Amino acid sequence: MIEEKVFKDPVHKYIYVQDRTVWDLINTKEFQRLRRIRQLGTSFLTFHGAEHSRFSHSLGVYEITRKIISQFERNSYADWPEEERLLCLCAALLHDVGHGPFSHSIEKVFGTNHENWSCRIILGDTEVNQVLSRVSPTFAHDVAGVICKTYRKEIVTSLVSSQLDADRMDYLLRDAYFTGVNYGTFDLERILRVVRPYKGKIVVKESGMHAVEDYLMSRYQMYWQVYFHPVTRSAEILLGKVLECAKALFEDGYPFTFMPEPILHLFQGKLSLQDYFLLDESLMQTVLMYWSLEKDPVLADLSGRFLHRRLFKFSAVEEWDKELLTEFRDALEEAGFDADYYLELDFPSDQSYDVYRPDTGKEDKQPILLLDGQDKLTEISARSEIVKSISGIHMGQHRIYYPAELFERGGGKAVALQRKLFDA
Amino acid sequence: MIEEKVFKDPVHKYIYVQDRTVWDLINTKEFQRLRRIRQLGTSFLTFHGAEHSRFSHSLGVYEITRKIISQFERNSYADWPEEERLLCLCAALLHDVGHGPFSHSIEKVFGTNHENWSCRIILGDTEVNQVLSRVSPTFAHDVAGVICKTYRKEIVTSLVSSQLDADRMDYLLRDAYFTGVNYGTFDLERILRVVRPYKGKIVVKESGMHAVEDYLMSRYQMYWQVYFHPVTRSAEILLGKVLECAKALFEDGYPFTFMPEPILHLFQGKLSLQDYFLLDESLMQTVLMYWSLEKDPVLADLSGRFLHRRLFKFSAVEEWDKELLTEFRDALEEAGFDADYYLELDFPSDQSYDVYRPDTGKEDKQPILLLDGQDKLTEISARSEIVKSISGIHMGQHRIYYPAELFERGGGKAVALQRKLFDA
Amino acid sequence: MIEEKVFKDPVHKYIYVQDRTVWDLINTKEFQRLRRIRQLGTSFLTFHGAEHSRFSHSLGVYEITRKIISQFERNSYADWPEEERLLCLCAALLHDVGHGPFSHSIEKVFGTNHENWSCRIILGDTEVNQVLSRVSPTFAHDVAGVICKTYRKEIVTSLVSSQLDADRMDYLLRDAYFTGVNYGTFDLERILRVVRPYKGKIVVKESGMHAVEDYLMSRYQMYWQVYFHPVTRSAEILLGKVLECAKALFEDGYPFTFMPEPILHLFQGKLSLQDYFLLDESLMQTVLMYWSLEKDPVLADLSGRFLHRRLFKFSAVEEWDKELLTEFRDALEEAGFDADYYLELDFPSDQSYDVYRPDTGKEDKQPILLLDGQDKLTEISARSEIVKSISGIHMGQHRIYYPAELFERGGGKAVALQRKLFDA
Amino acid sequence: MIEEKVFKDPVHKYIYVQDRTVWDLINTKEFQRLRRIRQLGTSFLTFHGAEHSRFSHSLGVYEITRKIISQFERNSYADWPEEERLLCLCAALLHDVGHGPFSHSIEKVFGTNHENWSCRIILGDTEVNQVLSRVSPTFAHDVAGVICKTYRKEIVTSLVSSQLDADRMDYLLRDAYFTGVNYGTFDLERILRVVRPYKGKIVVKESGMHAVEDYLMSRYQMYWQVYFHPVTRSAEILLGKVLECAKALFEDGYPFTFMPEPILHLFQGKLSLQDYFLLDESLMQTVLMYWSLEKDPVLADLSGRFLHRRLFKFSAVEEWDKELLTEFRDALEEAGFDADYYLELDFPSDQSYDVYRPDTGKEDKQPILLLDGQDKLTEISARSEIVKSISGIHMGQHRIYYPAELFERGGGKAVALQRKLFDA
Repeated sequence: MIEEKVFKDPVHKYIYVQDRTVWDLINTKEFQRLRRIRQLGTSFLTFHGAEHSRFSHSLGVYEITRKIISQFERNSYADWPEEERLLCLCAALLHDVGHGPFSHSIEKVFGTNHENWSCRIILGDTEVNQVLSRVSPTFAHDVAGVICKTYRKEIVTSLVSSQLDADRMDYLLRDAYFTGVNYGTFDLERILRVVRPYKGKIVVKESGMHAVEDYLMSRYQMYWQVYFHPVTRSAEILLGKVLECAKALFEDGYPFTFMPEPILHLFQGKLSLQDYFLLDESLMQTVLMYWSLEKDPVLADLSGRFLHRRLFKFSAVEEWDKELLTEFRDALEEAGFDADYYLELDFPSDQSYDVYRPDTGKEDKQPILLLDGQDKLTEISARSEIVKSISGIHMGQHRIYYPAELFERGGGKAVALQRKLFDA
Repeated sequence: MIEEKVFKDPVHKYIYVQDRTVWDLINTKEFQRLRRIRQLGTSFLTFHGAEHSRFSHSLGVYEITRKIISQFERNSYADWPEEERLLCLCAALLHDVGHGPFSHSIEKVFGTNHENWSCRIILGDTEVNQVLSRVSPTFAHDVAGVICKTYRKEIVTSLVSSQLDADRMDYLLRDAYFTGVNYGTFDLERILRVVRPYKGKIVVKESGMHAVEDYLMSRYQMYWQVYFHPVTRSAEILLGKVLECAKALFEDGYPFTFMPEPILHLFQGKLSLQDYFLLDESLMQTVLMYWSLEKDPVLADLSGRFLHRRLFKFSAVEEWDKELLTEFRDALEEAGFDADYYLELDFPSDQSYDVYRPDTGKEDKQPILLLDGQDKLTEISARSEIVKSISGIHMGQHRIYYPAELFERGGGKAVALQRKLFDA
Repeated sequence: MIEEKVFKDPVHKYIYVQDRTVWDLINTKEFQRLRRIRQLGTSFLTFHGAEHSRFSHSLGVYEITRKIISQFERNSYADWPEEERLLCLCAALLHDVGHGPFSHSIEKVFGTNHENWSCRIILGDTEVNQVLSRVSPTFAHDVAGVICKTYRKEIVTSLVSSQLDADRMDYLLRDAYFTGVNYGTFDLERILRVVRPYKGKIVVKESGMHAVEDYLMSRYQMYWQVYFHPVTRSAEILLGKVLECAKALFEDGYPFTFMPEPILHLFQGKLSLQDYFLLDESLMQTVLMYWSLEKDPVLADLSGRFLHRRLFKFSAVEEWDKELLTEFRDALEEAGFDADYYLELDFPSDQSYDVYRPDTGKEDKQPILLLDGQDKLTEISARSEIVKSISGIHMGQHRIYYPAELFERGGGKAVALQRKLFDA
Repeated sequence: MIEEKVFKDPVHKYIYVQDRTVWDLINTKEFQRLRRIRQLGTSFLTFHGAEHSRFSHSLGVYEITRKIISQFERNSYADWPEEERLLCLCAALLHDVGHGPFSHSIEKVFGTNHENWSCRIILGDTEVNQVLSRVSPTFAHDVAGVICKTYRKEIVTSLVSSQLDADRMDYLLRDAYFTGVNYGTFDLERILRVVRPYKGKIVVKESGMHAVEDYLMSRYQMYWQVYFHPVTRSAEILLGKVLECAKALFEDGYPFTFMPEPILHLFQGKLSLQDYFLLDESLMQTVLMYWSLEKDPVLADLSGRFLHRRLFKFSAVEEWDKELLTEFRDALEEAGFDADYYLELDFPSDQSYDVYRPDTGKEDKQPILLLDGQDKLTEISARSEIVKSISGIHMGQHRIYYPAELFERGGGKAVALQRKLFDA
């Protein structure tokens, strides 16, 4: 334990650090790097306040975890393994340490995975690993185990990752704060008071059901109002196209004027830890700026669109309207656009749709369990009509994304297509 | 006029755009570039929430100006020149368009000036200039005139820049919101209701005096709690040292491994508009990262310190304690540090100390005038005891900044110095 | 029009009065009386912040209506009858002017009705009537017509009373603010921007659907977390018992030591306007205090329980568990309690359950209609999965209320009953 | 200790009760009575949200005290007498238990004193005394001692009552919240973190100086914007006139139609504990309503003015303008008003002017002491320029209050007076 340090935080007011290990982890260069990765990727192009970093979110997850554990200790719950405190705090702090720039787009195009990178950073030759190893020889391994959900005590992993975990609680509040929407607010203090350890699980006291309902309703709204916002989707699609285009050029041996090592190794599929450490959003934006000046017209155009926020437009379409898709391709070709890089069908339901579902087998997240006065556990959707309703909703509009100029230039096919889309 | 567009904004809830010219300006690449410049420069290293951009601040200044003008129009004030509406809105939106990355440090080291750049962007071959020129042939020139305070109507310039202008009102609220401190809050809605045009000036209805007092008290607190925070000063000093060191190396013909054109031209003192456009904080951070890998040990070390947030420590000192300064230099040299790059005396009072002062001749900002029921104008500090008090305060601690290792390594001179400083 | 007046309001920041008629109405003694009637009746016994008055709520409803109309006028909507502005504002301000103290309980026991009283006050010999009559000879009649929903233009009545009216929007925000719960917050500014007049109705632009969803979710949560809170129900039940007991005693000729005229006339079923004006919550609390000192032991005991917040306890029960009810009656009699006054079954679903229902015939409130780009109207639950879910929920626990002492005194029947209830 | 109970509170989110004694005190009828006494007396006539009760404030003072002590215990400060915890909590909770309705006015006219009453309630035959006596035979006496500042340990009394006590911290935040002004906000959490026990005093860690400055600036603003608001003063003056008039009538043997015992005994100067318990704001408002129907024209008129909020107008005047005062008296007599009851000169500086003063001998409140790294204590105004400035300000306008009709009726003397006042 050290003299308490505090960080001013807009969401939690203050973040309290009471352990030297936590303090030292925050000061590693791997953790400081999270300042250069935005929490919400491309969302800042939709909500201009959303510039907050994964650094601030990681501190927030740590703080919520700290508060939960502190409540467990104050109440001396028998089912809480007190010796796991520091492990939980470190795993909470580090769970996102492997996130790269614009993760969604890069992971999709290059097949990287941020959880793997978190574990590589924790276990590799890093300052983070040095700090953890000072606790005990196996501590870094345990922290990685909690993040990858292989750690032997389920109660520890589910504190860090479950349907009601510190991660989600922080990001809903934080993303609502920085975007300025007021959908993400719920009564955190009340939820912190009603969770408790019980037979190796984190459960919720029955009387807290309504607070959890409210949390799940916030989550529902945030997904549809913020995370799946069509303009954000547009930015992500565009960034994906840029990366695909650059990758294809690279594979064709195109001579890039600026090719820093981390990007080269990303293209070659052989990113080292040292590369990964340099791969932040500043570098990505610098690369995009150079690409916007490249000779290849498609790469230059797409990169410029992203930088200057000239995003694709979108129209709602019926699911799998194959004919319409063909008409779009034809109109684009007529207008001089390569349809491979200037057209995309998007189905939010293909995304990891993060509405609470109690029953999906593939879901590796603990469902939310209510503990009643008779020590009986019930999954929340069996008790709450509103949760049952939300978890049963399958929704999401299918949209087609294309450059705004398609209809402005007004070739014959585009005109016909436009009439079909809007004059119906 | 166009169909109203809105931006979600955490500070003003919504920002309303009702003019095509304003909408088009926002969509220029020069204005979009402000997304890549932080509003508070290095403050994010002190307050991790302070990642907000000059883009969001510029929208905020526009919105406050829009609200003030809208109130003027609703009340049909005779002294308000209605034909200046669009000019005011555009000048409010664009007043910061010339800001570069980490302006304070770069302007100090390289002698650039963001107001000049704003005017170059407005008058040069830019998308901004094209949009403005569509209004009228002289419109761009007028906008530049308002920003440089040469425009012929004082009422227009003082709306955009005075002791109670839209600029300050937005940044106090915005910086308080994103840092999470609660010093910057004041009753904006009330102030907007009590300002009015009067004989070519913007004045405040007497009954609004207390709201203005509160605004000035907020400003006072924000300066000392946020803008002059010693940790932020430390980051700025460090960044200044990095830039000085790189500039000296450049002048010595040092072979940099990465030297993008905007940086080259910055060093050569011949930045073009096109260079300036590419010079954002992403590029600066990428450059710092490359520099942290350079062979020159001082440049590499200083750059790494900034990137990984290993800032200089500081100690309060008596003003101009020449002897102590010499002892610091000696101890640093003994410990192997080049004192030119690892030591700095800092006096906040040397900074542009932005506490309200009614009377300073060099101050080009309109003082705040109260309008009473008898149409008499009185400068506020003649009426308000609290404003008089604040404006009379001369304060600010003198601090010396140096690397934390100085005392950790513990050479003999450092030990003696440490004893002198802390055991007194 | 007069010089704008403002009221400081915690919910809307400021309330703006711009019409002499509105200003004069606020200053009538009938409207000032609303300061002495709490907005949430007995809820202050559950949420100690909930002391806010119907005066503040009425100003809030007025302010929201003013903002909606102002938006209609700014946009010059053809379907908005501009001449109805003042009528809407006055009806909004006065819609609750007939509310008595603790309306729910008193209306239930004595069969009074606050809407009728609103109209009596508006049409009777009152200051309110004088102010309205200065507008035009028929104006008071029109205002009463809007409140009683007989006014000829549906668009006017539905602005004041519908599923998405200024009344509900204000009370959700206000009750959330004063109780301190954060369930009632929704994006008022956005909703105000998406409502519009259309063919004699108030409709919602399709793009505002999610904001309306959020409003309906808030409403759902507020009903279950605040309005139907079991402790508040307990206080209301207790107050009902007090009133029933006093009424029965009165009918038996009991000699009350303190019987002010308004109470006497309430008992006699012949309340005059002048009586009603004196009948506020101060008088009711004073009467309760005198009753707590009466010789009749039941009246004194029940009144004291209410005053000193010694509310009935409650237990969840199966619907219509007749046997249990009998056991309770027996145990109460054994313990010396008159079961008529010390026992109550409560079914929130018997209450006017104010969750959004699009289709109920008895519902006299306009459903919420979405207006799409093709000028087509769709009832919201046909478009929104979440609204469909909420509107289909039938819930509410059945509870039995009884004095806490029943089990503390511990007669044999009580012990048996207690075992049955809690040890199952 | 009991199972933790919580109250939902808008200011502190939740109030936590962890001791049976505290829980039992809250449930006494003497403490419940505080629900019927407004925290801000007549301020609700200026700020309609200000209906909050002394009940909620008392809980808030308790909660802040609990948090301070809990921080002391967490840090195991040697200078904190841990055995005094419950005493501090009870004194904090009960410090206002003796407040009567509209204390300022009643205390002034009848010479009662709420601190004396608090002690009478704590020491007398009350439920509060019974609860306290269950702790130990001397506990009630100790609690009374802390409230009357005679308790032997200064650290205990100064926690409950000093220049930076839980009382002030709660009321500034609470009054700001309920009135809706934003002057009263300061960083409570930070202040709680920097106070500590030191050699029998509560002191502030030097690094917390700016947070304390902000608290004192809030206090300054709240006094001038809220507590001494001229409209609130007007209401208090009017209420004082009502009471003086009724008292004079009583002394003359006037036959009141309604004279409840507590009022009778108040007039006779022999209030018993039982009377005092019945004397709440409901009773006062009921009495005022009856008085507004009395035959005595002055009493009826003044009472009606208060009830219907027809307050006196005011004009700023020079200090002690004796001539003007005479002119007012003459004009009032001419217009048929008894100047004794319809005229008042008000000097806020005569009020207990609660701006921080470090040095006044008559001040029985501990000044604020800063503790530096060398364990040296310094009074804050010796360190903070802004505190020095505030504490040196002597301000306050002198105002004359009179009925609005004086100038409306327009007798000759009134016309002359009006011209003198407003046309100068």
